[in-house]
Amino acid sequence: MRLRILVTGGTFDKEYDELAGTLSFLNTHVREMLERGRCRLDVEVDTIMMVDSLDMSDADRATIAARCRSCEERAIVVTHGTDTMVATAKTLAAAGIADKTIVLTGAMIPYAFGSSDGLFNLGSALSFAQVLPPGVYIAMNGMHFRWDECRKNRRTGIFERTRN
Amino acid sequence: MRLRILVTGGTFDKEYDELAGTLSFLNTHVREMLERGRCRLDVEVDTIMMVDSLDMSDADRATIAARCRSCEERAIVVTHGTDTMVATAKTLAAAGIADKTIVLTGAMIPYAFGSSDGLFNLGSALSFAQVLPPGVYIAMNGMHFRWDECRKNRRTGIFERTRN
Amino acid sequence: MRLRILVTGGTFDKEYDELAGTLSFLNTHVREMLERGRCRLDVEVDTIMMVDSLDMSDADRATIAARCRSCEERAIVVTHGTDTMVATAKTLAAAGIADKTIVLTGAMIPYAFGSSDGLFNLGSALSFAQVLPPGVYIAMNGMHFRWDECRKNRRTGIFERTRN
Amino acid sequence: MRLRILVTGGTFDKEYDELAGTLSFLNTHVREMLERGRCRLDVEVDTIMMVDSLDMSDADRATIAARCRSCEERAIVVTHGTDTMVATAKTLAAAGIADKTIVLTGAMIPYAFGSSDGLFNLGSALSFAQVLPPGVYIAMNGMHFRWDECRKNRRTGIFERTRN
Repeated sequence: MRLRILVTGGTFDKEYDELAGTLSFLNTHVREMLERGRCRLDVEVDTIMMVDSLDMSDADRATIAARCRSCEERAIVVTHGTDTMVATAKTLAAAGIADKTIVLTGAMIPYAFGSSDGLFNLGSALSFAQVLPPGVYIAMNGMHFRWDECRKNRRTGIFERTRN
Repeated sequence: MRLRILVTGGTFDKEYDELAGTLSFLNTHVREMLERGRCRLDVEVDTIMMVDSLDMSDADRATIAARCRSCEERAIVVTHGTDTMVATAKTLAAAGIADKTIVLTGAMIPYAFGSSDGLFNLGSALSFAQVLPPGVYIAMNGMHFRWDECRKNRRTGIFERTRN
Repeated sequence: MRLRILVTGGTFDKEYDELAGTLSFLNTHVREMLERGRCRLDVEVDTIMMVDSLDMSDADRATIAARCRSCEERAIVVTHGTDTMVATAKTLAAAGIADKTIVLTGAMIPYAFGSSDGLFNLGSALSFAQVLPPGVYIAMNGMHFRWDECRKNRRTGIFERTRN
Repeated sequence: MRLRILVTGGTFDKEYDELAGTLSFLNTHVREMLERGRCRLDVEVDTIMMVDSLDMSDADRATIAARCRSCEERAIVVTHGTDTMVATAKTLAAAGIADKTIVLTGAMIPYAFGSSDGLFNLGSALSFAQVLPPGVYIAMNGMHFRWDECRKNRRTGIFERTRN
């Protein structure tokens, strides 16, 4: 089974710009994370944008949906900022891609900062993408949710189920 | 869904004893790892032994099997040294626990050493345990294998499929 | 010999606020750093402010100078943002504290981010503070400079000697 | 001022061999540490052996002394296992190298393990080497000792002053 990781940026990939003293994007850390996880999946890493999800436009979401539709792989992980992950999941669900398992994931702490949840989430998302039936899901906090059954609690940073 | 993690030791939990200059076991890092992963699963961590898997006896394996059988949870992750993980998986399969999903996982680098694959593997194993049908599995390198279809390649440290 | 560390904030102590997605100050990491360095010096850690050095006012600098003057210790390390470290060093030199060795240091990467230069710099600054004659110095990049003989190169992030 | 770092191994440079599950030496981490510390000193890194200091022979110590004598630099840091650091310091002192400042340092935790004291100690040793008068010293725990006034407390792992 072949998987595709679509990188869109988010906290996952932010790093500290030591000259400016700010957080910014450079290159994705996903390949380095796969290496650390000694991942042996047949996985293609595809950086389609590097944005803070608060800055993600409708056009960006359409781009992600188009890539999900056009790629050959039927198991897809999308790395994404957590703030608007649910909105993108909704867009992907509306795109009506019937035969693929699409799992969005992200991180609360940048991978580059050492104490990140990103490696846990990536391991989790890749696993769910291999075994869940076609559909659009969010994998965060060790859990998986269908796109229409969760929200991010902004106060706690935790993804919660909105119905059962 | 409630899960149980059975901790048995292995590289996962080894740490550096700075006075002796050797590797040894103290307490499990699994709770700290769940915290780092911001895991919100309803999960019970249960340390049943802390051994190097090369030192694991048949009696130890019987203990693990008994705990898998007796616990209430139907999704179980067993953290285990990689060297004899397949042997323990075989014992668990032979125990005939029909209604539970049991996933063994481990690490090539101790979690305490910073650059470990453990967090990736734990995220992966917890995810597989939630969605795979009942059975005994090994989750390593981002992949999952049925107990009777993989082996650890000692030369590369990678788990490989033995049949397709 | 007893030393005092005056904490003023700076990149040294910045951390990632995972709910806001921004960099901010919480508590100093200096005690944790001393513990990691297994430091056995008789050292008092004294947080007098937690500010980005670009936001440091003349009043703040006067406060630091007053504390350098009033404290009992004759060896003082000041942790400080790098951007205006030289300006604060100048203020401290102008304060005419004749009998104390004052060493300013900082970091280009926050200690909390794992790959920081902070631990190296703290070890360096504490060492210079013990053995240099009274005066005001900057310890960065493994080097030490008198307050009036260096500047931070904003383009490279490196402290450079301005005369020999 | 030009410095030389003589690498001899020790805990400093141990790493985890993930195939064997043991601690071993590969290459020194000193250059990577200098880079992390953004060190701008004019420093030559010279690996003369990679041994556990418990395995260091009289011939090894003679080799270190010879290199201290022959090198051009007058400020030398020797990275060394902590267990026999005092013995090597004694050998170096007996070598009668009159015009050089030689500072031995080490670590209780390997640098590769993330939580090491090594970076603190390296910053400290390089600083002492620049400013202390000629002689043989040990820099550990933020402190510096003349070769004949300290010992390692094996029970605590701390270097202690043996006289005042």
